Amino acid sequence: MEKIESANKQALSKILQAEPVLIDVQPAGEVIEGLGKNVILHSGPPIGWDRMCGPMRGAVCGIAVFEGWAKDLTEAETMAARGGFTFHPNHHFGAVGPMTGMTTMSQPVMIVENRKFGNRTYCTINEGLGTVLRFGGNNAEVLDRLRLIAGVVGPALSAALRAAGGMPLKSIIARGLAMGDEMHQRNVACTAVFLREIAPHLAATATDAGKLVRVLSYIRDNDQFFLNIAMAMGKAMTDPANGIPGSTIVTAMNRNGTDFGIRVSGTGERWFTAPVEMPKGLYFPGYSEQDANPDMGDSAIVETIGLGGFAMAAAPAVAGFVGAGTASDAAQFTRRMSEITVGRNSDWTIPNLDFAGVPTGIDIRKVLRTGIAPVINTGIAHKKPGVGQVGAGIVRAPLRCFERALEGVAGTLADQI
Amino acid sequence: MEKIESANKQALSKILQAEPVLIDVQPAGEVIEGLGKNVILHSGPPIGWDRMCGPMRGAVCGIAVFEGWAKDLTEAETMAARGGFTFHPNHHFGAVGPMTGMTTMSQPVMIVENRKFGNRTYCTINEGLGTVLRFGGNNAEVLDRLRLIAGVVGPALSAALRAAGGMPLKSIIARGLAMGDEMHQRNVACTAVFLREIAPHLAATATDAGKLVRVLSYIRDNDQFFLNIAMAMGKAMTDPANGIPGSTIVTAMNRNGTDFGIRVSGTGERWFTAPVEMPKGLYFPGYSEQDANPDMGDSAIVETIGLGGFAMAAAPAVAGFVGAGTASDAAQFTRRMSEITVGRNSDWTIPNLDFAGVPTGIDIRKVLRTGIAPVINTGIAHKKPGVGQVGAGIVRAPLRCFERALEGVAGTLADQI
Repeated sequence: MEKIESANKQALSKILQAEPVLIDVQPAGEVIEGLGKNVILHSGPPIGWDRMCGPMRGAVCGIAVFEGWAKDLTEAETMAARGGFTFHPNHHFGAVGPMTGMTTMSQPVMIVENRKFGNRTYCTINEGLGTVLRFGGNNAEVLDRLRLIAGVVGPALSAALRAAGGMPLKSIIARGLAMGDEMHQRNVACTAVFLREIAPHLAATATDAGKLVRVLSYIRDNDQFFLNIAMAMGKAMTDPANGIPGSTIVTAMNRNGTDFGIRVSGTGERWFTAPVEMPKGLYFPGYSEQDANPDMGDSAIVETIGLGGFAMAAAPAVAGFVGAGTASDAAQFTRRMSEITVGRNSDWTIPNLDFAGVPTGIDIRKVLRTGIAPVINTGIAHKKPGVGQVGAGIVRAPLRCFERALEGVAGTLADQI
Repeated sequence: MEKIESANKQALSKILQAEPVLIDVQPAGEVIEGLGKNVILHSGPPIGWDRMCGPMRGAVCGIAVFEGWAKDLTEAETMAARGGFTFHPNHHFGAVGPMTGMTTMSQPVMIVENRKFGNRTYCTINEGLGTVLRFGGNNAEVLDRLRLIAGVVGPALSAALRAAGGMPLKSIIARGLAMGDEMHQRNVACTAVFLREIAPHLAATATDAGKLVRVLSYIRDNDQFFLNIAMAMGKAMTDPANGIPGSTIVTAMNRNGTDFGIRVSGTGERWFTAPVEMPKGLYFPGYSEQDANPDMGDSAIVETIGLGGFAMAAAPAVAGFVGAGTASDAAQFTRRMSEITVGRNSDWTIPNLDFAGVPTGIDIRKVLRTGIAPVINTGIAHKKPGVGQVGAGIVRAPLRCFERALEGVAGTLADQI
């Protein structure tokens, strides 16, 4: 027990000491080793084509056409079914991706460096709302947008970030929490603050006035732009806390639309999985629970560092958006999450809770003792390939993952005796 | 009584129906009639050089040098004392100005048009924090900044706003309230949202890359940039509600560092004044109440439309900044203000109060009946000319103004019998 407490203290301290900085944007194939032709990284724990849900299959086909590996969606599907693509979880390559989480060689990825520990993580650039690849969309509009991102947005951000010497992220999150963001389903403030900080550098490094206007408009028109930055930051902060013997702190939560997976510090890179749950939430006009796919994405990394559902109190507007109730209900979510965490992040405070820090460091023992499953704010995808987002809601991490993880950590401790 | 109720309903309705749009930025002398050489508009009700407080005198001397009417501060002071300048309240020329509120011919003013009623209002561009003209600063750094504003920032904003076809402001305020701004002492969210909206237009209309970088940096580095926009908006919204016979709704509150003044709809352009109070608040290191000047500025126009101190619940971070307590105290300020107003603005809601609208339409009868004076969030200037801001706090409108105003409205009603 004492060993666990001390290991957990160490894990929490590593998370809190992190100094995440967005340093650059580069094509994934140039910075992620092993990401070559026909290799597709996806969200969640490991999964093959046979068990992939509809939207993930749709995204796989779309990205294969975008990369030029298949001439159309039909050919892509045939190739996938015949084992023509190699699939790996993003997390195995230092990356994270929202929803279907497709990461492939030609897409630009944002690079976050944790300057305290020197590790780096990667995430693609957010596509905005509507029919988008991450929700399983794969039509011409979706692929054109990916080309705009790769051809214009990525290179412009790269030049600006290099000129700026990187963009420290902790202070942006601190401001975002005071401005109603929880950094999962609401990133409007952080996106605006980020744009405000980067705009002069974008202008100073612009090679073409037309492209500058397109980049500034692209960020302006996407309230969720910052989500992918927050995700890469989340992984950059939790990776150094992984692999501390005996620690029962969660270092990653993710889902692939079929399985939910968690990693725990004491068991390093092992995944503990269980069938993923269906989000409860609100649907866009014309859609209902009948259309919904079970939850997916690596985005629950933000809950792992105390944001998203854990910081719901900071973002009463989100509570309405995800169907979780009123402002007072929002505060209650954050209070409940503090029952399953080992500490608070005093750099990230919530004005509505008289500036209490966000609850940080999920302890699987506390989850199992209280029966309180971590809450995750999430988008809801249509279960069929090619449709896209149909709503937003909240979902709980399945307790079964935590039971298995506890057995896993117990096993490592038993080994030492 | 029935006449008053009906007049007040009409006044409130005019405020709520407003459609304020920031349409352009132009040199004040070109858009404000009568603003020529040696004419200086100031904040608050009418006042002459003899009764002006220290910081306002400092600002007068500074702006006279900036305009080239005096070769240095000493000459400017001599000219002022000999009656060389003509002083008028901003409000008499459709304008508003923060703190000392200097408006003169060569300074660019932002133009807000109320598209519902066609009226226009003006306010200079915010200078940022530190030693600035509006707090009585008048050194070389202050005047250089005014030159940057007139030479670079103003023209760039003008071109961008014209290209954008104007920037509607009500929706920006709505977002700001959900992001922790109250639009008086906290404008960080609205400034970021404004920059996000205008940045593509600034880029599209830029004639010089270096100037574009300077403008984007100027806005980035000034958390209070949006304040002056909110002020012009406030006057654009309240002016059409002024002059409704029998109405006891306040249409302007302002202060010149010596007197506090209010206008009430039923008595039109008449000012009801009383000695201004000293703000209670927090001081920057090295300063104390001993250094403070009594309150000043036209900025209380934002409280007149339900923002600032009236929207304190939206901005718990402000409560700390102005020394007004915790998040729970912040909510209490807004609740109290709803006791002296005749309605709420359902377009501008506060998430922390489960999306209640901001209290709008101060009724002088309710102020006197309850004894609750309107609360104003404010900056604190040093009482000596040339020093600048020394703190921030809250101040109450003097009840004496409201007593006099009630007599004034009663007089107009008596006339009709």
